[in-house]
Parts: sequence; C-alpha cells; structure tokens
Amino acid sequence: MLNSVTIFGVGLIGGSLARAIRQAGFCQHVTGCSRNEEHLKKAISLGVIDSYELQAEDAVKNADMVILSTPLRAMPDLLSRIKPALSESTILTDVGSAKASVIEAVEKAFGELPASFVPGHPIAGTEKSGVDASFSELFQNRQVILTPTGNSAENAIRVVTELWEATGANVTLMDAHLHDEVLAATSHLPHILSFSLVDVLAGLKEHDDIFKFAAGGFRDFSRIASSDPVMWRDICLSNQQAIIKMLDFYLSDLNKLKDEIASSDGDALLKAFTRAKTARDTFIET
Amino acid sequence: MLNSVTIFGVGLIGGSLARAIRQAGFCQHVTGCSRNEEHLKKAISLGVIDSYELQAEDAVKNADMVILSTPLRAMPDLLSRIKPALSESTILTDVGSAKASVIEAVEKAFGELPASFVPGHPIAGTEKSGVDASFSELFQNRQVILTPTGNSAENAIRVVTELWEATGANVTLMDAHLHDEVLAATSHLPHILSFSLVDVLAGLKEHDDIFKFAAGGFRDFSRIASSDPVMWRDICLSNQQAIIKMLDFYLSDLNKLKDEIASSDGDALLKAFTRAKTARDTFIET
Repeated sequence: MLNSVTIFGVGLIGGSLARAIRQAGFCQHVTGCSRNEEHLKKAISLGVIDSYELQAEDAVKNADMVILSTPLRAMPDLLSRIKPALSESTILTDVGSAKASVIEAVEKAFGELPASFVPGHPIAGTEKSGVDASFSELFQNRQVILTPTGNSAENAIRVVTELWEATGANVTLMDAHLHDEVLAATSHLPHILSFSLVDVLAGLKEHDDIFKFAAGGFRDFSRIASSDPVMWRDICLSNQQAIIKMLDFYLSDLNKLKDEIASSDGDALLKAFTRAKTARDTFIET
Repeated sequence: MLNSVTIFGVGLIGGSLARAIRQAGFCQHVTGCSRNEEHLKKAISLGVIDSYELQAEDAVKNADMVILSTPLRAMPDLLSRIKPALSESTILTDVGSAKASVIEAVEKAFGELPASFVPGHPIAGTEKSGVDASFSELFQNRQVILTPTGNSAENAIRVVTELWEATGANVTLMDAHLHDEVLAATSHLPHILSFSLVDVLAGLKEHDDIFKFAAGGFRDFSRIASSDPVMWRDICLSNQQAIIKMLDFYLSDLNKLKDEIASSDGDALLKAFTRAKTARDTFIET
C-alpha cells in the first residue's frame, strides 16, 4: 500500500481512478490537483479525493506516485512545473491516449527519461466527461497498456501495474509506437469519423428530419461524437503521424466503395461488406 | 381487421412484422413466401407465420394485403411474378430502405402506379438478420415513413397506416426523394462508413492487437458492420445518387479534418469537434 498518490486532472478518468484506488485500499491518501478549484471542491464533495492542491509543486512534494490525467497538450507545461519539486523516488505515470508524445514531453522537461517514469493508457472511458461522470468500476475487466521506456525501473513498472490491477484492469506491456498505431486505428480514427459524420449531417439543410429519423444504428455510431472536444483535439495533435496514416487507408477504401457504388459494382460491394461482417462477427463478439 | 396478409421475405423485418400484426390481431392469417423452404418451415415452427407458399402467384391470390420484405434488388422480378395474380383490391406495400427505386420498379412491372400501392419504410432493425432474430416489439415507438405516390388511394394509405400503428410504430408521410436523402444521411452513410472501417482494420497487419484492444467506442461504432451484406449491397445500388451525394460531403469534410491534423490546426479541430458534440447532445438525446 502506498501512502500518498497525487492525480492531476480529476475528470472522468482521473476521478474514476481516484475512486477505484481508494476503494481498493491501494493508498492512504489521494490528492487532486487542477487549475479549477470548483472542480476540485466538487471532487471533494463527491468523495472522489481526500484533499486538493492548486499549485502543482505543492501537490507532488510528498507523493509516492504522481498520475497525469490532464488533456495531452497540458502535460508539457505541467511537467516543467512539477520537475523541480518531484523526488527521484516518486513514481510518475500518466493516462494519455497517445504515448510517444508524452515520452517526448517528459524527456524534454527532465532532460532524460527518469527511471521512475512509466507511461500508461487505460482503454476505458465513456462519451461523458468531468468528475460527475466518474465511477469506481470504469476500469474493471478493461485493458490497460503500459509502454515502459528503456529507462523505466522494474520496481516502477511493478507498482504502476499494481495500481491498475487494483482497479480491476488487465495490464499489458507494449512498445509506445505500436500502442500509438493500434489506438489510432481502434479509437482515434473512429472518433474522428464520428465527429465528422455528425458535423456533416448537422450542416445539411434537412438536419431536422435527419436527426428526427435517426435510428439505433446512427445513435450508436455517433455516440462517441459526444466526447470531450479538447481531449480529442489534443489526441489528434499528439498522434498526428499514426492518425494520418490510418486516415489515408480509410479515405482510400471509402473512395473505392464510392466508385463501386457509382459503377453499380454489386459484386465488389458484396465482397467488401461480407469481409467486414465476417471480421466484426469473428473478432469483436468473441 | 383484415382477413389475410402475405409477406414476401420472412427475415428480421418481415418476421418481426408478422409476429407484431398477429399479436395485435390486425389480421386473421399471415402467409409467408420465400424461395427458401427451410426458412419458411423455421418461421412456422417459431410461430411467426400461419402458413407458407413457395410460388409467388399462389401467395398473393387471396391476400387483402401484400408486403414486400425482400432485399431491394429482388423486388423487380418478384413484382413481375405477382402482377398477373394480384387483385386490384389487394393493398401492396413494402419495407425497402430506399423508396424511389421501389416506386420505379412497381411502375415498370405494372405499367403504371396502382392506386393500391403505398411504399413504406420502418426505421427499425438490428445488426442481426434472419427470422431467428425477429421479435414482435421491433417497431414499438419507432418511426415508419410512408411515401405515397400521386396515385395512392386514400383508403390504401389509411390501411397501411393502421398496419404500422398496430405494431406500435409512429407513421409519417414523406416525399420519396426526401426520404431517400434523409436515409442516405442517417442510415446508409453510417453503415458504409462502419463496413469500411472494419474492412480497413481487418486488413492491417496489426489486426490481432487492433481487435484485442478495441474499446467500447469501437464496438458501438462497428456494430452495424455486422448487418446483412446482401441487404446493404442492394441499398447501395438502389439509392446510388443520394448516397454518393452524402459520401461526397463526408469525404470533403474528412479530407479537411485530415489537413487540419497534418497542419496542427488545433483551433479548427476544436471548432469542428465542439460543433459535432453540440449537435449530437442537442439532437440525439432529446
């Protein structure tokens, strides 16, 4: 059991993590830190954290573990601010949806990759955001990917693994670049496609009829377009290369389907839809 | 109450409609017709239909109402086969997801648009298919769009409206071309995007990791890619013009987002994602 854990950013992910580790008895005290005191007061009143700090330096001083759970683009500044106050023995981790950019930011802020730093990413979330939406079961039976750097100490990897196992998650270690490609495909691309679809439809002159007659398929498909825009802007900017690679694959496939529809190539359409159905039925439901 | 209703195609939609109208007492007898006797026998054993016919001519002879619930591209042939045996007083409707093409097929088969013909489309379904997946509550509180032609008789429109109201659905009348544009946007485009996404991901070399780490967002987004490939090939070929129009809007928006990601235009991304979230939260949840 750790004594003290500090979480920067007490929203859906940070708040759910705070709830889960307090409930599991992983540590004695959880400190929240954010620039928004109202959010922190709400987190206290909801029983999510034990106390809060407004100054990053104060928040990390006596922590055994520091967890960054802010939007990705807020991390470089935050890392510079905590660096002078962070003890070498304090374990540093994060929950960012892109990993190479966080590793780069840590290396820049610290001048090297500390042994205490273990990047992480819980594959969990809902389309909701904010501490109100947090709940302690969010990570149960979910996958958490850790992407240790060449410098990450065995002990630090072990403690961050225990952190996530305490929430009920399954932990996998992975190379940061493979993580970024896999997540670009399974999460970042679908979110961009969903945001784009809703934005396009909302801009059509028939949008009242369009949303009135939207059925279950559309509701499911567009659910992730209700996600936090700041978080998703930051993910797009932090995983540019992998996302653009996936978008190029996708645009190429979609243009091909469009040509097949335009040329009434029913055989090609049937083949593509059958491949997709088979893959979905095989890979997802099992 | 009608005496006899004949349904061509006893799958998810046709089967659910048969169950719903029998349960509601809308008619005394439901006859199923299909080229696949095994499916019809299963429909009998499941209690979905009262009897079946294998010959289209026999199936329509004494029917008060005939409902076409086959894939769209099977309708032209079917219409030619039933035409000689169909009484002028028999009400003819369908459940096709594209309406202009069905109207065109009826006009071609009959030489004119019969007064007894009222095109329809229930905005309901699941990603499953086949009579096994049918259930009588499928249409409860769902929207059904009827697109009467200039020739549709008031009485025929009234009886087809009563058919759907008996299933618990809400009926709206709409112009066929507006229907086809609205559905291209809310249903056909999302299905194509989802089929394409799953097909692209399944083709990547990392596909094992990709499907292993797929989270809830991806599962929801890709659910409709498990839909019936034949049905969706037929929809693509039957609503080409409206679908290509929507695909062009979409491809243009997605290319714009890609450029904004590539040029690190965070402001533009934040604006687009915020517009989408606002539209989704406003239009869908209310």
